Amino acid sequence: MTQFPVITSPRNEKIRAAVKLRRRKHRGRRGRTLVDGARELIRAVGSGIRVEEIYFCPSLCSTTESRRLLAQLDELEMSIYEVTEGVFEKLSYGERTEGFVGVAIPPEVELDDLVLPENPLVAVVEGIEKPGNLGAILRSADGAGISAVILADQKTDLFNPNVIRASLGTVFTMPVCAAPSKEVFNWLKVQGFQIIGAVVDAVACYTIMDYKIPTALVLGTEATGISSVWKDVNAVRIPMQGVADSLNVAASAAVLFYESQRQRLSKQQTSQPSRTTAPVVVPQPDWGNGNS
Amino acid sequence: MTQFPVITSPRNEKIRAAVKLRRRKHRGRRGRTLVDGARELIRAVGSGIRVEEIYFCPSLCSTTESRRLLAQLDELEMSIYEVTEGVFEKLSYGERTEGFVGVAIPPEVELDDLVLPENPLVAVVEGIEKPGNLGAILRSADGAGISAVILADQKTDLFNPNVIRASLGTVFTMPVCAAPSKEVFNWLKVQGFQIIGAVVDAVACYTIMDYKIPTALVLGTEATGISSVWKDVNAVRIPMQGVADSLNVAASAAVLFYESQRQRLSKQQTSQPSRTTAPVVVPQPDWGNGNS
Repeated sequence: MTQFPVITSPRNEKIRAAVKLRRRKHRGRRGRTLVDGARELIRAVGSGIRVEEIYFCPSLCSTTESRRLLAQLDELEMSIYEVTEGVFEKLSYGERTEGFVGVAIPPEVELDDLVLPENPLVAVVEGIEKPGNLGAILRSADGAGISAVILADQKTDLFNPNVIRASLGTVFTMPVCAAPSKEVFNWLKVQGFQIIGAVVDAVACYTIMDYKIPTALVLGTEATGISSVWKDVNAVRIPMQGVADSLNVAASAAVLFYESQRQRLSKQQTSQPSRTTAPVVVPQPDWGNGNS
Repeated sequence: MTQFPVITSPRNEKIRAAVKLRRRKHRGRRGRTLVDGARELIRAVGSGIRVEEIYFCPSLCSTTESRRLLAQLDELEMSIYEVTEGVFEKLSYGERTEGFVGVAIPPEVELDDLVLPENPLVAVVEGIEKPGNLGAILRSADGAGISAVILADQKTDLFNPNVIRASLGTVFTMPVCAAPSKEVFNWLKVQGFQIIGAVVDAVACYTIMDYKIPTALVLGTEATGISSVWKDVNAVRIPMQGVADSLNVAASAAVLFYESQRQRLSKQQTSQPSRTTAPVVVPQPDWGNGNS
């Protein structure tokens, strides 16, 4: 491996500038963010995100991903610095980061830039505050094959280092953008989306909807739900059988995303009869799907 | 409202003793834990948990629940103290707690003490470390009508204040217990449970299983999955269509819990034909349910 310049002082100017990016004010001002973790950096670079600087501490690179990234450093065209454990501790700010922190330029994507597949299924997350919840939602969206995640009326920045971390870097691989709720609503309408909003006291159970057509799933905050912008959309509730009146927003998202996926995969199966013993014209599921 | 004794010094002996309960060592030694939040205390008291002390700061009681609890304080038979904001800040340790912290004796429940309904659906959570994840799992279990949550080979204590908080107090209302994995496995076998384990690389998709019979759902850690104790159980995977190879464990739990609930509610519907337009003998769902 090439010898990279070594930084041994936590007071180094570059280190101090990078650490400042833990604060939103500095991220906004400089149009940069921090990416903690090797897996996250690999996903950022692989998705064409411009990573400007990488700091690594060899003695902390113990995971498979961090060793993989170590082996690839020679091929990367960016500023790369080896740092001591003391410097790394200052940089990583208590994050579990497997010896890697990078400085990246988050992409600025507009609604109209979103590249969507045929028959898209998008998630709209409105007013969410906790980066950990937003990250978990992105990770579930990635798993469930959601086409895009749109942050409406954002309260946390999409590329907050804690969002990046909790999303395992899927915030880079997933089509994402942020816009005001009203704008998102109008855009979805123009695009012809069915809009389904999760509402605690809605009459319709989420399972009766048909998610096999172009659909937007709208999730609000735990405290106040979705805003009045969405007052005329299809409201669904997730049944609550215990004492609490709602799920954690990331849990609600996972349930809706995977119910959509379940319905869509079942549709795929019916169009590929050779892969299943079910008849080509399949009977309606017993709990209904909104078309029955 | 009765005048309760007022504590104005953060160095008060009772306050110092309560604060120590933020540390597991002291919780274990004294068999006590802290309950942050009015809603959580209401659920603890309502579930018969022995709450020994309540500390409240009137100026911080702004939520509906905290005002409700304030109004009920006269009727409660325990030691109740009013504290100043400075004292409360020390007690609450940065938690968002709506002006209430209590000291409670967590119940000690054995596997054989669990009171289960007919045709139970239990969740087994093995080796989980993050209290926030365990709390979110309990909250989803409450919502989905899970019969009991069993903590196997516990790494965090079930009544950690952060578990109580993230569960919104449902850790008190839900039948819960902790036991070694091997013991849990044997108990489930003796009770005749179908055991289904979430495994990242399992062949079977979680949706093909039949959750309408007595079932235990086993979830492991994100790092290592479920242990070898469960090697012979029905392994299912949650389909991952993106770049990440697994969901957050709390998201996995929500998906499995609500698929079980969906199947079980659909079964209820078929036995109450007057509540649905579906035929009494319902066709198999098109994506299969394990019986087809």
